[in-house]
Amino acid sequence: MKRIFLDYASSYANPSAIHKEGVLARRKIEKAREGIARILGAQSDEIIFTSSGTESNNLAILGVVNQARQVNQARQVNTVPHIVTTNIEHPSVLEVYKYLEKTGQAEVTYVPVEPNGIVDPKKIKEALRLNTVLVSVMYANNEIGTIQPITEIAKIIRNFRKSLTPPNPPLTKGRAQGGVYFHTDACQAVNYLPINVSKLGVDLMTFNGSKIYGPKGVGALYKKRIVPLEPIMHGGGQEFGLRPGTENLPAIVGLTRALEITEKMKEKEVKRLTKLRDYFISQLVHSNILTNVRMLINGDLTSRLPNNVNISIVPMDNIRAAPRSEQSSGTGVDQSLIESELLVLELDARGIAVSSKSACKSEEIGESYVIKAIRPEASSVAGSIRFSLGRNTKKEDIDYVLRSLKHILEKLKRWYN
Amino acid sequence: MKRIFLDYASSYANPSAIHKEGVLARRKIEKAREGIARILGAQSDEIIFTSSGTESNNLAILGVVNQARQVNQARQVNTVPHIVTTNIEHPSVLEVYKYLEKTGQAEVTYVPVEPNGIVDPKKIKEALRLNTVLVSVMYANNEIGTIQPITEIAKIIRNFRKSLTPPNPPLTKGRAQGGVYFHTDACQAVNYLPINVSKLGVDLMTFNGSKIYGPKGVGALYKKRIVPLEPIMHGGGQEFGLRPGTENLPAIVGLTRALEITEKMKEKEVKRLTKLRDYFISQLVHSNILTNVRMLINGDLTSRLPNNVNISIVPMDNIRAAPRSEQSSGTGVDQSLIESELLVLELDARGIAVSSKSACKSEEIGESYVIKAIRPEASSVAGSIRFSLGRNTKKEDIDYVLRSLKHILEKLKRWYN
Repeated sequence: MKRIFLDYASSYANPSAIHKEGVLARRKIEKAREGIARILGAQSDEIIFTSSGTESNNLAILGVVNQARQVNQARQVNTVPHIVTTNIEHPSVLEVYKYLEKTGQAEVTYVPVEPNGIVDPKKIKEALRLNTVLVSVMYANNEIGTIQPITEIAKIIRNFRKSLTPPNPPLTKGRAQGGVYFHTDACQAVNYLPINVSKLGVDLMTFNGSKIYGPKGVGALYKKRIVPLEPIMHGGGQEFGLRPGTENLPAIVGLTRALEITEKMKEKEVKRLTKLRDYFISQLVHSNILTNVRMLINGDLTSRLPNNVNISIVPMDNIRAAPRSEQSSGTGVDQSLIESELLVLELDARGIAVSSKSACKSEEIGESYVIKAIRPEASSVAGSIRFSLGRNTKKEDIDYVLRSLKHILEKLKRWYN
Repeated sequence: MKRIFLDYASSYANPSAIHKEGVLARRKIEKAREGIARILGAQSDEIIFTSSGTESNNLAILGVVNQARQVNQARQVNTVPHIVTTNIEHPSVLEVYKYLEKTGQAEVTYVPVEPNGIVDPKKIKEALRLNTVLVSVMYANNEIGTIQPITEIAKIIRNFRKSLTPPNPPLTKGRAQGGVYFHTDACQAVNYLPINVSKLGVDLMTFNGSKIYGPKGVGALYKKRIVPLEPIMHGGGQEFGLRPGTENLPAIVGLTRALEITEKMKEKEVKRLTKLRDYFISQLVHSNILTNVRMLINGDLTSRLPNNVNISIVPMDNIRAAPRSEQSSGTGVDQSLIESELLVLELDARGIAVSSKSACKSEEIGESYVIKAIRPEASSVAGSIRFSLGRNTKKEDIDYVLRSLKHILEKLKRWYN
């Protein structure tokens, strides 16, 4: 039957409309939601679609904190909600804390990771307080690829809950509210690690489309039913009242399809990339192509994403890290490592796209706080480069990178001598 | 030259990356930003890309209020920021106010619109206070299409600013901060009305992609340079530090292209649709096809979007609005108007997609607050239908709708008698 669409003031096929176009769109969204829930081992009403990983992280953290603050306010309790996290979280997590601290809305304990880039669960346990409302630890780091012990931390939080007498006590003894919840930013992990939320034991989990070869502009937040959350935006009642705005149907369907494909490929791809990563690392460290420098691999070598290689390059005595003319410029830049931006641009000129640190903070010049966290002994750690491999990466690409790196370091040697 | 992409941990072509793919993406975004700025008569650093109209509205309102609150806090002033608005704003505006009121973060004056659905600028003027930080009035209403006198209100705000002695005084006499800013939600207006922000005199303006035949999942906020804004999300420094998260490049480019096309078509399309709209209205009101009912047109007939027809249907004495069996069910539903959901479904069954009220609130059963605002005398106004015309709407579609409406009303007559 011919359709006459006279609902242009809504978006086309607005899932909240009750006409045929709207109902079909609604069904597609709910089917997508069920598809994602099935993969995560969750209920479909535990999946909230957002616009990005950043938004999901903000919603999880601000949502829990604001909810706790409202409960405190209603019960006239002065406790400030407390958060436990690590010092190598993504900027979309760390910047939320900075804002909460600046405005006095929350207290935050940053548990430092160990030199291998992995947090010690015991130290998370020691950081827990009666007013702790949220523990947030990323599943895998975006710069150095280290994998955090999520299931162990989840266990600690479960035991902490039980240890409270009575368990999850109502508002007594300075306790902010009934629960402490565990959030993980899994954006970098979804491609390669198990993501069954009950097995992981997480209460909130962030992931997004663009990191799993899906569409940009879409993210999701897994939110266990028991977790009370205050929305960060207000409007229509979409996404169970937690995320207003007309649903981005094509992006939601795309995210779901991308996650399904990722799950199907995961096992094979993990094997393939682990092999490639370890070949890359062994060539970097042991090959004689790089005799002029010392190559440091940042982050644990085994509890690490199969696609991540992050290096710092220390020049030997006969190489200087910067041209002589700059040595006396007094910029305060320590030149004991070769500057990463320079290497990124040299690689780029040879057709190789890599990053020096999180793109999310790349507009700010300076060292990576992640590298700084694992190499506090280095007076400057500006010189890290992240190679992140993917579905199209082949062994010949790695070999080309190794050859290019050799040429670059030789060129820099001549330049700096 | 062959490219080897080893930056999978970023999104592909992350505009914040410094390699070729990133730089090209950055250029495309800045070109898009310039394109939009040119159309709006703005500077390109005054355009902030978001994920939706809802997010732009939230950012504008929460951004101004939170900024004022922080200034107050820093200066240890107890003034609560005050907002002036109307009672027919979009839910993504009204629900923000409800949240701010509930949490004691702002005071809001809702200026009621006149029976024609248009706000009297004098009443906006009367509502201004020393602690007013924001006036927010939608450009055109999403349900009844009435156009608000934006330039007049802008003039009033400019004069109010000047009237303060000294103009824009620093924090004295209970004044929250240096300025009162004017925001308009232009989502429904952009297709048909002038959108030069300096001519309009607005400081903040919301619009989005899906309402102008562009992509879903993208919106923009025009923010005049002088307006201080606190972000609602935190993370990477994207969008001048006001909206974190990797930019949604394809959607941003699509939004820009959609706006360019809209501008090019505007004049012709306004003429064509105005004619079509007025034909539709005259047929509804004067045609003998609808003798059993009285047809009410909601909202002003001239200061109205060219694509909007919103009607309420009052049955004559010989028609009942609901089946007899329900008359005594005591549901409290006033049956003096024919229920809109019923009409929407009947039209849908005949291939015509229309809405009964804002899709953004359609999950909530009940009357439209917009119709209630312009027809406070009606004990129930559940019976409104919005026909919103668009680029594909032709006269024959309108004729088909008129015929279908006749059949439906005849059927309902038999049914209810």
